[in-house]
Amino acid sequence: MLVFWEKGYEATSIPDLLKAMGLSRSSLYNTFGDKRALFLEALRFYQKQMDSRQEILNRATSVKEGITEYFNQRIESAYSTEHPKGCMTTNTSIELSTPDNQLKELVKNRFLGLENSFYQLLEKGRLSGEIKSTTDTKSLACLFMNLNHSINIMGKVNIDRLHIGQMIKAVINII
Amino acid sequence: MLVFWEKGYEATSIPDLLKAMGLSRSSLYNTFGDKRALFLEALRFYQKQMDSRQEILNRATSVKEGITEYFNQRIESAYSTEHPKGCMTTNTSIELSTPDNQLKELVKNRFLGLENSFYQLLEKGRLSGEIKSTTDTKSLACLFMNLNHSINIMGKVNIDRLHIGQMIKAVINII
Repeated sequence: MLVFWEKGYEATSIPDLLKAMGLSRSSLYNTFGDKRALFLEALRFYQKQMDSRQEILNRATSVKEGITEYFNQRIESAYSTEHPKGCMTTNTSIELSTPDNQLKELVKNRFLGLENSFYQLLEKGRLSGEIKSTTDTKSLACLFMNLNHSINIMGKVNIDRLHIGQMIKAVINII
Repeated sequence: MLVFWEKGYEATSIPDLLKAMGLSRSSLYNTFGDKRALFLEALRFYQKQMDSRQEILNRATSVKEGITEYFNQRIESAYSTEHPKGCMTTNTSIELSTPDNQLKELVKNRFLGLENSFYQLLEKGRLSGEIKSTTDTKSLACLFMNLNHSINIMGKVNIDRLHIGQMIKAVINII
């Protein structure tokens, strides 16, 4: 997972994977099929690990607190040097130049799942009165999903982290 | 440029480039140096072509009209099937897993240049009274720069285009 996350699908070679996994070529093929199948496994494993972050949205009682906590962790992770930069799902979406429907669906569903978590939380806040009843929660959920992915890119290019944090704060203040 | 835009830096092979350019290996090396140097040329050429879109922001007299026109074109381009999907600069930012300072600077400066065009236009609107004088134009410029890049990703994954258009409209309505 770390090799694919670091280098992306295309740039990862079979020797890279064999080295990282301590496997022989034949046991890699016997166990996982091929590079693509192994990548799908790795991406699913990555997404499972990231589910805890999405859980912040699902269990939040306050919209603004939940979204703030989510993005604090998102920014922390996007700028961290302890693991490969950015988000493996976002990176994969950029690599989708060749039509690969299974991969495309895996990524797209992940995007829509995150958007839905934002949407459910915003709706909760609209009904509780924390945010205005006229708020366009569908567009706002889409906005936050977009920012989730762009922050990954900002981290990659090392755009000033404090500036990104302030931008998120400003958006949350508006809603 | 089209080959690099379509496949990205890593996945593009020298034979891909020779075929697209109709050159022999020796004339490619003699003319451009190596793959990396050719990629830098291609990225600069791409960015020059995209300057006209950024010009929409620089010459706009109304903030809301200018930003609306910019994003209409951005969405059109992100979902177009007439050229490779998305934006070559955003794609390149994702590929920046290896430290390559020259490339990183080229991408980062491009990001900051776009953010500055949004900022100048927002400031113009703040001074003319089109938007509130208390608007945090720095954060808003950063938000639009982020959305510029995330829309590229949305196009790659084929997230419903109308939904993205509505989200941008909603953001512009808020300012």
